[in-house]
Amino acid sequence: MKKIEHLGIAVKNLENSNALFEKLLGEGPYKEEKVASEGVKTSFFKNGPTKIELLESLNEEGPIAKFLKSKGEGIHHVAFEVDDIYAEMERLKQEGFQVLGDRPKKGADNKWVVFVHPKSTNGVLIELCQEIE
Amino acid sequence: MKKIEHLGIAVKNLENSNALFEKLLGEGPYKEEKVASEGVKTSFFKNGPTKIELLESLNEEGPIAKFLKSKGEGIHHVAFEVDDIYAEMERLKQEGFQVLGDRPKKGADNKWVVFVHPKSTNGVLIELCQEIE
Repeated sequence: MKKIEHLGIAVKNLENSNALFEKLLGEGPYKEEKVASEGVKTSFFKNGPTKIELLESLNEEGPIAKFLKSKGEGIHHVAFEVDDIYAEMERLKQEGFQVLGDRPKKGADNKWVVFVHPKSTNGVLIELCQEIE
Repeated sequence: MKKIEHLGIAVKNLENSNALFEKLLGEGPYKEEKVASEGVKTSFFKNGPTKIELLESLNEEGPIAKFLKSKGEGIHHVAFEVDDIYAEMERLKQEGFQVLGDRPKKGADNKWVVFVHPKSTNGVLIELCQEIE
C-alpha cells in the first residue's frame, strides 16, 4: 500500500463527465480505454501524484451498472499501488480481509489489479494495482 | 486542485476502524482530533503523499450520522489541496459548481475547508482545503 494510485468514479455518461472533470481539475483526460473483461469504458486524469479514473458501464449487468443502479454516480473504489501484488494479497488474506479472486487480472492503464471486498474494509471497495512490466 | 490531500471515510466506531486501517495500511493513525463545528471525531493515517481520514459522528444529526444512515460506512469525501481557497471557490462557482458556503471553515488537521455539493460533481462530495498559516 505505497500510495493511492487512483480514485475510481462511476459515471453514467463518460463524455459528459469528462467535460465536468476537466472543468473541476483544470485539465482534460490524458487517455480513454475500454476494459472488455470488466465491461467498462474509462478515462484517466492526472492530478498531482494521483489519478482520477472515470468509469462508464458498457452493459446493463456489470459491476459499474449495478453500482449506478443501487447508489447512483459517485466514488466507486480507491486503488492502492503495491510493489508485489501477490505478496500483498497474501498479507491481506492473513489479516482477515476478503480478497476477491486468487490471482490478479489485467485492468486498465497497464496494471495487474485485484479487489478487496468492501464488507471487510468498512464499506470501501479497495483495488490493489501493480504496473505490468 | 493540486493533489488529493486526503480521502475521508465515514465509520461507525473510530476505535475499531483505526485497528482495521492499521492492518490495511501497515501503520496506525498519526493523530486523532475532534472537530466540534462538524460534530465529528477523526483520525489520520499517512499513505505516501496522501492521507486517509476516518470520521465518526459525535451526534445523531450531523452530516456523518446522516451519511451512515443513508449509505452505510464507506468513502464520504475526497479533499483536494489548493493554494488559494477563495480563488478556487470563485473559479468553481463561475464554472457552475455548487460551492457550499461563502467562506471556508476551520476543519480538522489545521486546514481551511469548504465543500462542493455532490449534485454538481457526479455524486462526489469534494472538499477544498488549504493549510492554515
